Amino acid sequence: MTAQTETVKSGAGRIVISVDAMGGDRGPAAVVAGISRSAKKNPDIAFLLHGPKDTLTKLVAKKKPLTGRVEIRDAEGVVTMEDKPSQVMRHGKSTSMWSAIESVRNGEADVCVSCGNTGALMMLSVVRLRKLPGINRPAIAVLWPSRSASGFNIMLDVGADIRADEHDLLQYALMGASYARNGMELKRPRIGLLNVGTEEHKGRAELKAAHDMISENADTANFEFVGFVEGGDIPGDVADVIVTDGFTGNIALKTGEGTASLIGSLLREAFKFSPLSRLAALLAYTSLQRLNKRIDPRRVNGGVFLGLNGTVVKSHGSSDATGVSAAVKLAFKLSQSGFSEKLAARVASAVSLPQDAATSQDNNGTTS
Amino acid sequence: MTAQTETVKSGAGRIVISVDAMGGDRGPAAVVAGISRSAKKNPDIAFLLHGPKDTLTKLVAKKKPLTGRVEIRDAEGVVTMEDKPSQVMRHGKSTSMWSAIESVRNGEADVCVSCGNTGALMMLSVVRLRKLPGINRPAIAVLWPSRSASGFNIMLDVGADIRADEHDLLQYALMGASYARNGMELKRPRIGLLNVGTEEHKGRAELKAAHDMISENADTANFEFVGFVEGGDIPGDVADVIVTDGFTGNIALKTGEGTASLIGSLLREAFKFSPLSRLAALLAYTSLQRLNKRIDPRRVNGGVFLGLNGTVVKSHGSSDATGVSAAVKLAFKLSQSGFSEKLAARVASAVSLPQDAATSQDNNGTTS
Repeated sequence: MTAQTETVKSGAGRIVISVDAMGGDRGPAAVVAGISRSAKKNPDIAFLLHGPKDTLTKLVAKKKPLTGRVEIRDAEGVVTMEDKPSQVMRHGKSTSMWSAIESVRNGEADVCVSCGNTGALMMLSVVRLRKLPGINRPAIAVLWPSRSASGFNIMLDVGADIRADEHDLLQYALMGASYARNGMELKRPRIGLLNVGTEEHKGRAELKAAHDMISENADTANFEFVGFVEGGDIPGDVADVIVTDGFTGNIALKTGEGTASLIGSLLREAFKFSPLSRLAALLAYTSLQRLNKRIDPRRVNGGVFLGLNGTVVKSHGSSDATGVSAAVKLAFKLSQSGFSEKLAARVASAVSLPQDAATSQDNNGTTS
Repeated sequence: MTAQTETVKSGAGRIVISVDAMGGDRGPAAVVAGISRSAKKNPDIAFLLHGPKDTLTKLVAKKKPLTGRVEIRDAEGVVTMEDKPSQVMRHGKSTSMWSAIESVRNGEADVCVSCGNTGALMMLSVVRLRKLPGINRPAIAVLWPSRSASGFNIMLDVGADIRADEHDLLQYALMGASYARNGMELKRPRIGLLNVGTEEHKGRAELKAAHDMISENADTANFEFVGFVEGGDIPGDVADVIVTDGFTGNIALKTGEGTASLIGSLLREAFKFSPLSRLAALLAYTSLQRLNKRIDPRRVNGGVFLGLNGTVVKSHGSSDATGVSAAVKLAFKLSQSGFSEKLAARVASAVSLPQDAATSQDNNGTTS
């Protein structure tokens, strides 16, 4: 660790992440503990921390790894989980969430992290950061435990918008591919389009149209299009990125989470059944911990808002230090790779495709 | 077991189930083993078994419990998993699937069981059995392991049709309630409408309209409407019946199955990791078997086609004897309770509701 103290600007060679300290279910202490953990692991990271100055100053002072790594931005207001997005939009200027997004808007940071109200965060992000040129509907992308080599697949949209036409689905494919390259280091990600069957003639009209459009863009945008995939492929190994509308994606996400949670409960029950099974549980402890770590929702914590001028990482509302630290790690990776600029360039080039198919070939092999 | 031999008609006091012996991945031997298991457990059941006579006669002769309980209906043709529904419709008269449905059509049985091609089975069922008066889109309902007291929730539609408007969703609610009463013995089932949030203002237009229509029918049709539910509630304990369109339902079903299967694989991996964990696995064997039994897809085997003149139970293509026997058990329960007639009466009374709200009150408290 260097002796640097006050300045946390990216000019100091560190990547600055803008963090909303408030609005999570566990309060600012969990957030500060989380960024402290990240600071300890990663010397190249610094924070703009938004929230009530006095509270945050005390919390930060207790964490040694944060010495000289945090600049606190005073914001008295807090967006609660119950606040309606439109109210926050009108009256939320004093909130830590607004302030955290503002730091991305004015270029102090590339990426913002918040555990707060998803709806409000999405609306503030869209209105304050604005959509990238050519993007109609921004999307929320999540990481999903899977059989893929990386251990995770990306799915988008999981709920930014309940509608998506074929143009939106193409943009999700492009954004998802870019996210897979920059967030997961997959050079040529496999993209699948979620449907109720893998036959090309099946499904809704917009899915058939999207199938053709994504297929046409695969070479130029440097991804592999595996065609239609089914629900069972979301945790599978046929695609790295699963593209769908926000209604279907949200239902699938919550169904998967609910199923995993039910199995976890049943597993605990099964191991409590008899003295022998309790002994087995004791012996199995590390095995079960290993499994738990693999599918721990805190480790895949971090829905990412894509399609805006800047990136916003949404951490679970109930995130503890581990969860916040995982979200910060993802934010760091995306910021370090220059994801926001690459994504903007990628979308811009695809938007020009229909008019100008010849020049788009120049993009072949680039890795935005 | 009685000394009855040749006649298996329901007149003999037994419930007759029509069974398609062919088209499953494991061939007719698995089907015959499955119905034999059911016959052994349940003296009140008899079978019409459809398929190539010589093959089936040999298989049935090997199973003692089937003596005098099976009437074989010769059908040489087999619908394969690759056959297109429209082809089967045109050229499939000689198949065992066609023959099995025909036995329901002509009243020899109330319920038919098949492990064959879902699309073909659905199309044949709709065309040959025809939709109930007032039903626009039939639905496929499945049982889903859940935290509910019964251990399962019902979800429909999981893929009969990729579209559903508010009228269809109301009919799914009515059919699902009736299925819950007759198949799961829930007197006043809780019905939930799947959406991306539980707030009443959220979601697609047809969902808001369906919300109001289902709510209006709850008292008359004797179910409790719990309003919108989310993906996480499908394996949860807030609703016994989850109503959704076939696109969303199919994706949710397969996502849940895929997630459970991934966790199962990871669990096996975790227990193979070290000598200690292998020992733990040995000790944990019965605990894990108990868990496995609870969420075994073979036990919840049996998608049910609802909304037709007669009931068709679709067993998994890969069903073994346990799976076939579970599907037969469900078919028996539905046939014994007079489900088909009750469902028809229930739908008919709801169809008349808009015109005649006063007389529909007479149905209050009935249990169709």
